[in-house]
Amino acid sequence: MDYRKTAMEKHAQWRGKIEVVSIPKLETAEDLAIAYTPGVAEPCIAIKKDPDLSYKLTRRWNTVAVITDGSAVLGLGDIGPEAGMPVMEGKCVLFKEFGGIDAIPLCVRSKDPDEFVKAISLIAGSFGAINLEDISAPRCFEIEEKLKKATDIPIFHDDQHGTAVVVLSGMKNVLKIKNKKPNEVKIAISGAGAAGTATAKLLIHAGFKNITICNIDGIINKQNSVGNPYLAELAAATNPQNKAGKLEDAVKGADIFIGVSAPNILTEEMIKTMNSEPVIFAMANPIPEVMPETAKNAGASIIATGRSDYPNQINNVLAFPGILRGALDVRANDINIEMKIAAANAIAGLVTEDDLKNGIIIPSPFNKNISSDVAKAVASAAVKSGAAKAKEYIINNILW
Amino acid sequence: MDYRKTAMEKHAQWRGKIEVVSIPKLETAEDLAIAYTPGVAEPCIAIKKDPDLSYKLTRRWNTVAVITDGSAVLGLGDIGPEAGMPVMEGKCVLFKEFGGIDAIPLCVRSKDPDEFVKAISLIAGSFGAINLEDISAPRCFEIEEKLKKATDIPIFHDDQHGTAVVVLSGMKNVLKIKNKKPNEVKIAISGAGAAGTATAKLLIHAGFKNITICNIDGIINKQNSVGNPYLAELAAATNPQNKAGKLEDAVKGADIFIGVSAPNILTEEMIKTMNSEPVIFAMANPIPEVMPETAKNAGASIIATGRSDYPNQINNVLAFPGILRGALDVRANDINIEMKIAAANAIAGLVTEDDLKNGIIIPSPFNKNISSDVAKAVASAAVKSGAAKAKEYIINNILW
Repeated sequence: MDYRKTAMEKHAQWRGKIEVVSIPKLETAEDLAIAYTPGVAEPCIAIKKDPDLSYKLTRRWNTVAVITDGSAVLGLGDIGPEAGMPVMEGKCVLFKEFGGIDAIPLCVRSKDPDEFVKAISLIAGSFGAINLEDISAPRCFEIEEKLKKATDIPIFHDDQHGTAVVVLSGMKNVLKIKNKKPNEVKIAISGAGAAGTATAKLLIHAGFKNITICNIDGIINKQNSVGNPYLAELAAATNPQNKAGKLEDAVKGADIFIGVSAPNILTEEMIKTMNSEPVIFAMANPIPEVMPETAKNAGASIIATGRSDYPNQINNVLAFPGILRGALDVRANDINIEMKIAAANAIAGLVTEDDLKNGIIIPSPFNKNISSDVAKAVASAAVKSGAAKAKEYIINNILW
Repeated sequence: MDYRKTAMEKHAQWRGKIEVVSIPKLETAEDLAIAYTPGVAEPCIAIKKDPDLSYKLTRRWNTVAVITDGSAVLGLGDIGPEAGMPVMEGKCVLFKEFGGIDAIPLCVRSKDPDEFVKAISLIAGSFGAINLEDISAPRCFEIEEKLKKATDIPIFHDDQHGTAVVVLSGMKNVLKIKNKKPNEVKIAISGAGAAGTATAKLLIHAGFKNITICNIDGIINKQNSVGNPYLAELAAATNPQNKAGKLEDAVKGADIFIGVSAPNILTEEMIKTMNSEPVIFAMANPIPEVMPETAKNAGASIIATGRSDYPNQINNVLAFPGILRGALDVRANDINIEMKIAAANAIAGLVTEDDLKNGIIIPSPFNKNISSDVAKAVASAAVKSGAAKAKEYIINNILW
């Protein structure tokens, strides 16, 4: 099917993929007096006295802003803020359909991280959380870090953390199949952008010890990362033997390959240098680092891609609607490591024993339980880790 | 009825008055591939090539941001951004119910006009227009002026121009009843804030020549306005004899009183010093400058207030949904004087001859024709005045 042609036709027909609707209907002067003046003064006064009531008397409790600068949209690169809007609206649709969240798309006309942070922090009181999207690395790291400091609501850069969570959920199931512990496997990551960096960091937090990460110049180590704080941070936390070399050197002897980089860069020959029955996560989109058939031929035992036409699709939609749903439900002030690991566990837990036997490590995005399972796990983790700021909330049907 | 109590109960029950819904439904992997990746890349590429397509392939064509800093909310004063949100959401409901517009409420955490303008101009590419709301004067003038320069979409400060348009529509019908021309009547305005300033300016543009405007210190003239650019501009355009004095001096001998100021400041005695059968627009809310009964006793012939429990309610909802609807429909890049006067004429035209005989000069907000009549008039005026930027549009069912 020609998705591109159909997508253009449907987008021209939809003229926007989201709509704002009214909850109260206005049919009489009395309706107006209650939803608007003079009655509306009462909730205003209440929020003035206790700003926390903005989570009870306005839609803030359920609202996420989906924000881009259009600098790294899909695989299209820097296409500008307005051109990023169809993706932002699509994301808002996913938030609603999978998480019941009211998401508002915003595109920012600035490539300056400080301008971006200032503008968004000034309007942060309008939202319950912020989802950053399609912002190029390393600017995305700086923006996320500074926005977290400048606001009191959760900031989630999905290209980083959504991907990292789903990869970790897949890894959890890989370990089940292989009957190994995180510290017993050796991982090579190709790609040190938003997704690669966040994936490496989350895997380390989850107990994986032996990770080597490569960018286009090769293996990142303590020498070649000098002067770049983001790469230096990665070098300090990965590559325990401080190796140098190219991707083929990183891959050699590894148990697992994780690609968030470029098409066709992992060859059959390279896979054959990995440990026996290696695991291949080839997530470049739409053309993966290696096609599943090729990986299989070279001896791969478990294969995941970013594509919907192969099994084990690493799709962020498994993670972000439930993560934000859980964060909103307990009014978390952050989406911390504990919450991300809880999300990965919940996603991994939706794969059955039978599926595992067939090499299935990732559930389908249309599995009905995903969002609510992830949301409950994330909300619980927020409470346990002290991130939940709501005075009361419901998890697993229990009022806390 | 106790609107305050009911409003609190209803707001606690609604938990927000607007909701974001999806236009496409996502039930299959194919739905996802068309609304999101990989299909969504196609409209992105199209908008990158021609940014104008953001009005055809995203919801921008129908989206208005409703933005406040919470500095002048209702009669409550500076209650802060979050506390202004119930009003902003209410406004969004009115935009939807009366104008079919998707409105997004935003509250800005800054009292610095330049910070406000910078933040909002950076996200302006997300919207088709911006409605400013409940921002205190004179900051609102500076913000509106600078935002107009910083963006290419219409900026409409409703507290100024919505009120001015509805007052002008009432004035048009007053003139019909009195059989007079604009230059034949003498007007005293009480209040030189957002509404008073914009009303004076619009009346002048509509041909009214003899206007005197007072603030809390009395009549504004060329001497006492020195050093305040906004008052100096008013002084230059009003008060042709450059009078000094108090409100009672301004009112004396006037045909029309327009109050956008404070409760109970216009006495029976002051009304008796006006010309015979004077016209009283007493719009302070909820307690007007003079109660209608008192004005009637003092000899007033036509009375309007801001209240829904008296005839002739000067309610901005008569104006803003249709004005923004009309501006969006032809992709206006401004809401100019011509468009505002067209809106006032359209509103005035909805009052029947029979109503005029009974002193009714303002239509009911529930008159079904208002928004579409105003929208058509505003769209036509935008085209004639060169503000319409759409390549094609429909007015009065004709494709242009």
